[in-house]
Amino acid sequence: TAASSRIFSTSTSDKRKLLAPSDTFISRHIGPSEAETKAMLQKVGANSVQELIEQTIPKQIRLNRGLKFSSFREGRGESEMLQELKEIASKNKIFKSFIGAGYYGTILPPVILRNLLENPAWYTSYTPYQAEISQGRLESLLNFQTLVTDLTGLPIANASLLDEATACAEAMYMCNAFSSNKSFFVSSDCHPQNIALVQTRARAIGVNVIVGDHATFDFAANPVSGALVQYPTTDGRVLDYSGFVNKAHEGGAKVVVSTDLLALTSIKAPGEFGADIVCGSAQRFGVPMGFGGPHAAFFATKDEFKRKMPGRVIGVSRDSRGKPALRMSMQTREQHIRREKATSNICTAQALLANIAAMYAIYHGPQGLRRIADRVHTYAGVLAEGVKALGYEVPTETFFDTITVKGVSADKLLKIGYDSQINLRRLDSNSVSVSVDETTDLKDLNTLLSVFSQGITGNATHSLDLDALLARVGSEYPETLRRSTPFLTHPIFNSISSETQMLRYLYRLQQKDLSLATSMIPLGSCTMKLNATSEMIPITWPEFGNLHPFVPADQAKGYHIMMNQLREALCEVTGFAEVSLQPNSGAQGEYAGLLAIKKYHESRGDLQRDVCLIPTSAHGTNPASAILAGMQVVVVQCDEHGNIDVGDLSAKIAQHKDRLSALMVTYPSTHGVFEESIKDVCAMVHEAGGQVYMDGANMNAQVGLTRPGDIGADVCHLNLHKTFCIPHGGGGPGMGPIGVVKHLAPFLPNHPVVDMTDGNKIRDSSDSSQSYGTVSAAPYGSASILPISYMYIALMGAEGLRRSTQFAILNANYMAARLRDHYPILFTGRNGRVAHEFIIDIRPLKAATGITEEDVAKRLMDFGFHAPTMSFPVAGTLMIEPTESEDKGELDRLCDALIIIRQEIRDVEEGRADPKDNALKGAPHTMDVVCNSNWTRKYSREQAAFPAPWVHSLGKFWPSVGRIDNVWGDRNLVCTCPPVSDYETK
Amino acid sequence: TAASSRIFSTSTSDKRKLLAPSDTFISRHIGPSEAETKAMLQKVGANSVQELIEQTIPKQIRLNRGLKFSSFREGRGESEMLQELKEIASKNKIFKSFIGAGYYGTILPPVILRNLLENPAWYTSYTPYQAEISQGRLESLLNFQTLVTDLTGLPIANASLLDEATACAEAMYMCNAFSSNKSFFVSSDCHPQNIALVQTRARAIGVNVIVGDHATFDFAANPVSGALVQYPTTDGRVLDYSGFVNKAHEGGAKVVVSTDLLALTSIKAPGEFGADIVCGSAQRFGVPMGFGGPHAAFFATKDEFKRKMPGRVIGVSRDSRGKPALRMSMQTREQHIRREKATSNICTAQALLANIAAMYAIYHGPQGLRRIADRVHTYAGVLAEGVKALGYEVPTETFFDTITVKGVSADKLLKIGYDSQINLRRLDSNSVSVSVDETTDLKDLNTLLSVFSQGITGNATHSLDLDALLARVGSEYPETLRRSTPFLTHPIFNSISSETQMLRYLYRLQQKDLSLATSMIPLGSCTMKLNATSEMIPITWPEFGNLHPFVPADQAKGYHIMMNQLREALCEVTGFAEVSLQPNSGAQGEYAGLLAIKKYHESRGDLQRDVCLIPTSAHGTNPASAILAGMQVVVVQCDEHGNIDVGDLSAKIAQHKDRLSALMVTYPSTHGVFEESIKDVCAMVHEAGGQVYMDGANMNAQVGLTRPGDIGADVCHLNLHKTFCIPHGGGGPGMGPIGVVKHLAPFLPNHPVVDMTDGNKIRDSSDSSQSYGTVSAAPYGSASILPISYMYIALMGAEGLRRSTQFAILNANYMAARLRDHYPILFTGRNGRVAHEFIIDIRPLKAATGITEEDVAKRLMDFGFHAPTMSFPVAGTLMIEPTESEDKGELDRLCDALIIIRQEIRDVEEGRADPKDNALKGAPHTMDVVCNSNWTRKYSREQAAFPAPWVHSLGKFWPSVGRIDNVWGDRNLVCTCPPVSDYETK
Ligand SMILES: Cc1ncc(COP(=O)(O)O)c(C=O)c1O
Ligand SMILES: Cc1ncc(COP(=O)(O)O)c(C=O)c1O
Ligand SMILES: O=C([O-])O
Repeated sequence: TAASSRIFSTSTSDKRKLLAPSDTFISRHIGPSEAETKAMLQKVGANSVQELIEQTIPKQIRLNRGLKFSSFREGRGESEMLQELKEIASKNKIFKSFIGAGYYGTILPPVILRNLLENPAWYTSYTPYQAEISQGRLESLLNFQTLVTDLTGLPIANASLLDEATACAEAMYMCNAFSSNKSFFVSSDCHPQNIALVQTRARAIGVNVIVGDHATFDFAANPVSGALVQYPTTDGRVLDYSGFVNKAHEGGAKVVVSTDLLALTSIKAPGEFGADIVCGSAQRFGVPMGFGGPHAAFFATKDEFKRKMPGRVIGVSRDSRGKPALRMSMQTREQHIRREKATSNICTAQALLANIAAMYAIYHGPQGLRRIADRVHTYAGVLAEGVKALGYEVPTETFFDTITVKGVSADKLLKIGYDSQINLRRLDSNSVSVSVDETTDLKDLNTLLSVFSQGITGNATHSLDLDALLARVGSEYPETLRRSTPFLTHPIFNSISSETQMLRYLYRLQQKDLSLATSMIPLGSCTMKLNATSEMIPITWPEFGNLHPFVPADQAKGYHIMMNQLREALCEVTGFAEVSLQPNSGAQGEYAGLLAIKKYHESRGDLQRDVCLIPTSAHGTNPASAILAGMQVVVVQCDEHGNIDVGDLSAKIAQHKDRLSALMVTYPSTHGVFEESIKDVCAMVHEAGGQVYMDGANMNAQVGLTRPGDIGADVCHLNLHKTFCIPHGGGGPGMGPIGVVKHLAPFLPNHPVVDMTDGNKIRDSSDSSQSYGTVSAAPYGSASILPISYMYIALMGAEGLRRSTQFAILNANYMAARLRDHYPILFTGRNGRVAHEFIIDIRPLKAATGITEEDVAKRLMDFGFHAPTMSFPVAGTLMIEPTESEDKGELDRLCDALIIIRQEIRDVEEGRADPKDNALKGAPHTMDVVCNSNWTRKYSREQAAFPAPWVHSLGKFWPSVGRIDNVWGDRNLVCTCPPVSDYETK
Repeated sequence: TAASSRIFSTSTSDKRKLLAPSDTFISRHIGPSEAETKAMLQKVGANSVQELIEQTIPKQIRLNRGLKFSSFREGRGESEMLQELKEIASKNKIFKSFIGAGYYGTILPPVILRNLLENPAWYTSYTPYQAEISQGRLESLLNFQTLVTDLTGLPIANASLLDEATACAEAMYMCNAFSSNKSFFVSSDCHPQNIALVQTRARAIGVNVIVGDHATFDFAANPVSGALVQYPTTDGRVLDYSGFVNKAHEGGAKVVVSTDLLALTSIKAPGEFGADIVCGSAQRFGVPMGFGGPHAAFFATKDEFKRKMPGRVIGVSRDSRGKPALRMSMQTREQHIRREKATSNICTAQALLANIAAMYAIYHGPQGLRRIADRVHTYAGVLAEGVKALGYEVPTETFFDTITVKGVSADKLLKIGYDSQINLRRLDSNSVSVSVDETTDLKDLNTLLSVFSQGITGNATHSLDLDALLARVGSEYPETLRRSTPFLTHPIFNSISSETQMLRYLYRLQQKDLSLATSMIPLGSCTMKLNATSEMIPITWPEFGNLHPFVPADQAKGYHIMMNQLREALCEVTGFAEVSLQPNSGAQGEYAGLLAIKKYHESRGDLQRDVCLIPTSAHGTNPASAILAGMQVVVVQCDEHGNIDVGDLSAKIAQHKDRLSALMVTYPSTHGVFEESIKDVCAMVHEAGGQVYMDGANMNAQVGLTRPGDIGADVCHLNLHKTFCIPHGGGGPGMGPIGVVKHLAPFLPNHPVVDMTDGNKIRDSSDSSQSYGTVSAAPYGSASILPISYMYIALMGAEGLRRSTQFAILNANYMAARLRDHYPILFTGRNGRVAHEFIIDIRPLKAATGITEEDVAKRLMDFGFHAPTMSFPVAGTLMIEPTESEDKGELDRLCDALIIIRQEIRDVEEGRADPKDNALKGAPHTMDVVCNSNWTRKYSREQAAFPAPWVHSLGKFWPSVGRIDNVWGDRNLVCTCPPVSDYETK
């Protein structure tokens, strides 16, 4: 017992240990206790964790030393680490930024901050593939889509994309998919990062981008698939594009309008002047700038184009009771179905941020949003009058929130602004722009006018009179530009005005959703581990939140220190020379990595190398990314053990030798196995002049035990939202940084606005001229969530990370050992071990009983569990990944549930249960079905709802709708909030 | 629609309004929208809110001007106000404090911080009177009691008291209640605030306190009811009190030990050496010092004394299904039952903080706690060796965390410490003490040794070697002092080691509890209004959390600015000259106010004035407080309209004229009525030389419309946890500051350690020599929750506060208007109006049908509602207080529920429902009852669980146990965690 341990009989060195922090983290992150570990090893049949690892990971790739982190001491306490990061964060200088260009100050209503963004019940949930236990966030995402369709004036919207610039590029892909013209027009009035991204992406697929003046562009002379304009323009002008749209359409081109949701409350909706695709960023709807992200991009289009629309779309369908129910619709469009035919590789998006934007709109309602827009516009108006009165020229005649100011040296003005702790945007040598926003107040206005006064008179005090300026503020928008249609008329946007109502709405939705706060989410390939509070706390610090991504580097010192330490650590973890933090999802990492490989070959004159080998078992984003990188996908077979068929690989290499660009390989494999041949595989590819791209989705089985760089990979992306503890947020945000070997480092992404060599101390080359281009809108992707991974690595240290991986493997092997007698385990590696995940095969049971993997998945909901990954990588199977954060008790409950389910299947098999009317086919069971007087099923209410003893004692989680009819929903697509009457019992 | 409002056709002054903040708060705090207000006024039959108020509040007391706040501008935005308070907070200097004396640095585990302290589902819940929907926090409080009994070694504990010093005083009351000796011994080794508080409280009831050396105290010569010692002593010594206990017991005295829970993991439990009562503070179990509070005090005693134990006790009982269920036990001990016979006035306690302490213990488990204690002890040991090596004397031979250091001028050392940003404690002119704690680290140790080095050599660098010091760190505690018994052996303290497990445990308990995040809590007299996020955010800022209450005033400038502005505002709200922030609950406010009155009379030579008049309708704390203030309670009758019977009052005044000390009156009355006679009543009391104490529990009906000071009161307490938005926390914390007229100001509470005139700019008298004494351990009570009320007042401004009160009254009158045809409304004022709350009478229905107010209360749970206040102030009734924060939709749902229930009663009345087996008697209905195959009740499952259409659509809230058998539980008292087997289905 505790009381019998006597500290003073300990030696000095033991006493010394007592002086160490008492709030260390490793045992908080890892689920099993010491006693549990013992019991689990016994079940697994290994004498020690070490032995198990030796049986699992091939010797030739095992790392025989501990990781070494120069920035991170071992054994840090959570509280001291939080303090230390706070000190680093405070090196960021929080000036007021009037830079605009797609990023604006905004006020996140505190009730949403605390109860959504800072609430694990929201941020730890997964993408709502299992719709019956995700109706809360599905409702919220449907609200987001309604917001987008209403404001853009187009009928179909998705549930977010990664950022505005990638959204523009996705629009370009879409236009391209509908056209045979291999050119695309981009207005030079677009934000520079939008232009750069479209250029990068177009170049990779051989589309020619024409950047120019939209007013003079000749569609007849230059046939293009589509044209992109910015509305308002990057320097602030609100232009009438209706003539342009007509010309484009006459020329057979689609029009993409990248726009601003807040402005659209006041200016004409692009859908109303004929736009085909409307996209942009919803950042200023409550999401802090965060040095570039994460924020939700939006994307809307016309009905006729919906089946080529990228991203996830939430739609209304009906459930087994015939009641309305939400789910992700039209999934057949997605890359995991279309693979080599995909026109987009988007997978993880920005669900959490889309939810914030939707809640922001609900909180303010249409009047409130319009009031914020009017306020911003009035500030811009007063500012314009003020600077004109000071003697400047303001060429932006019609504007929303941004004005251009001409007439004095821009550098001089920026310097004066800097001294007053504000950031202006430099447009050219003698013009700047100023974007005001929701956070702008009278003090800011005064500072701005003082700065401009100083710029022209040398004197900071001015004699401008606010009322006089206000009186001069111009007339309303011209008829052609003015919004005259209503928006957000649905009751959900008009029923909440008090904080109490908002709080209860958030809680009501939360109750419907299963998250890590409820129970484990054993999704293979997704690594749903602990997202610890200490990791999450820093992301809502204003020191990280309130930075514009384009501020001068010296205002972002805190970010640079944090990012450099993180990059260094990731280099050590992966065995690579350099890491780029730009890609903000795994798929974007794949894409960025393939571009680096492409550019590497080009730099060597190997222009013909365009074949990408991809095993059949690969995740759908792999072929999609390869296609978007302009490569040709050649599929490599797997053998019956789930390993790459080395013979087939060899044949394919031989066949495409000169054209071989890359092999994409996931390690351990998507089958959950450490393939023994991996080093040979890499060597074969290198031999043939190819590069090895490693998909790092399964890094959770590698960290500290082996390294992609050592295995032979040349590039690897890391899903920080899997292995490195960024929560999934119900479908994003994520981060997909890539590590590369030295020879690929010069080809990492660059940025059109920010000089990325600033503050980047580990980059080998200080020159980004060799980069293929830009893959995210912001230079460091979703920088503001990097503190999560930073804290994780800092708190775990080398020792903790290694143990973490060991336990990820132990937990998986323990579950496999318990389940082995009940379900076939599909693939195992040497010594019968699995990696950090494993597949149970439902196909033989289906053949025997008609019970499918979907039935098992839905039935697990009745036990309060989220299903494992369904039918990936093998149709008809379930892939289980427990992660290291789950304790034995939870692992046992999931095993018990699966074993009870197996018994239920046997009941069907052996005729004790009806093949159609049984607890599996009837799952999931909702409250109103179970509580109904009229129970007609052939099994009991208790079996339906309380199939295991702990279901009640641990708190029953009720699926809020019955099994959803996906086909019906796709046939009757509704992706905006339906009228309330639809929800009434019919 | 929003789109049709055109800002540029507005006038300059309208445009100017557009420049104001867009995140103002008033409409976020108040529930009803404009449209709803119109509809509600119509139902009420008033043309305007103004008219309704005129019909409700007597003309002669109406305030005919707006409130004026010198510190608070109108129309502030939430974000700017948060920034402004942050700036004020940052004026606090956060030094490391080694002061000890009951307050210690501690680390609140982030997962508990975020998911309990910062989670509205925890902090907005009410005291668990309605146990069936409170099993989550009841379980947590039972854990707290188990923690306390295990560590103290006594079998019975309560669920918290206000602070350590009041706990000592409560112990003194208890000893006094068991004895005829009117003396009490207090060791001079106790913390000074404990001594002061016992002295104050004892003096008021005529108990003589002897402060002295426990070692030499002669019980035979000085018969006392009890004796209080500190363990370890305030200067750090761990003493063997067993001989002292024997002597005390031989002398017929009880022994009270005030102690430290962390130390008790290592030193002998007081219960083991015979202590009768053990109390202290659980602050260092995770609760920030917060400049004095709030923290949970604990209190444990022997079984034979349990019925005189103060405070709420959670006990295990069983429910209608025979299953274990928790609830507050032995409530007949409480002051609302015992009234004039009460021996304690404690009501609101520190539930939220007790929950934090319990969760902290679960998070660490016995080993973890012991490790923290060992660590702290080792630091203290190294420090002792270090200062001895430097040449100091350390008289504390056996210590836990605190050592006394002698041998140099204390003032000089404090000054050197100050320059190194640390605080030491001055004991006398040449000794200081140093208390280390969980947050102490090697850096601190080094700073401390440098400071001591400088104190003796003038040189801050010392040549001490850590390992050498460690080697010298002494032997273990002597056998007689060492703890050898196990503690926290219950599985709940031994089953959670990972953050994931902790998170799920917190969520599992949360799910069982109804809070404001679920639905309205219409508790009359309790004002369960919005506790807004912006109000809550500052309380977890380290700038407010990490201050020891005894730091020099110049380190607490931020606190003083905030508190002075708040006091000024409260003076304006109440119409008083001065406000004391010391009392940390309403009942303590009553007590402090009565002491001021008592001292006032004494100061005028009116020593005989000891009669306190109290109307029958008063809250139980009123007579209890009067008794504890040494007054004699004389009850005044009410008339059939619920008003004070002015005839009876007049008679009682006449009868007790010379002895009249005070009248205690609640306004508007506890019946929810603005009594017309209030001014006359006050005048009558004054005429007779008495003072008027106003119970401000109902201030939510007064703020901005009338003022206690103007009405004629001399003192009034404000429950900041009702009117001023401090959340109830499931039963505390609260704050009960008192406002007083000028002539009472000199008699407000003082403090034995802190000079309260420091930084107190509005206090009339800068001298506290006339104070009666000290009522809370900390000079400003629970200072760290004052930002909540500060933010509320600052954000609402005069206009907002006035509207808030108007809507509190409108909402109550609207509900009364809707319910009037269904239930008798018991009391109304002029024009048939109620104040901010009203009473519906269930007695006639009970007479007719046997359906009781309890049946109605429990039945409301099936609708997802918390019951109104039951049987207070009138038995057999329900008192409804909606507050201004509820919108019409929610008010209507509660009305609908009550109307449906009325129909169900009618079904019994008219024979359609069985008088015993009906949905009312069967309520509340749990999931396992409703989902059971075997349904035998005479009504349907649907009627049981889904009695209104919105119950399902808004998210069914399930009571987690059936109706609880209170009598059984009191007869079989169990107030610690029962063995797990008890919970298994029998
Ligand atoms: C094996 C694999 N590769 C790539 C991805 C794509 O990553 P992201 O969703 O971050 O774009 C995933 C996502 O689950 C994956 O499992
Ligand atoms: C009328 C009245 N007076 C006094 C009190 C006691 O206040 P507290 O619980 O803060 O001690 C209450 C508490 O509900 C009350 O309603
Ligand atoms: O999102 C996934 O495709 O795993």
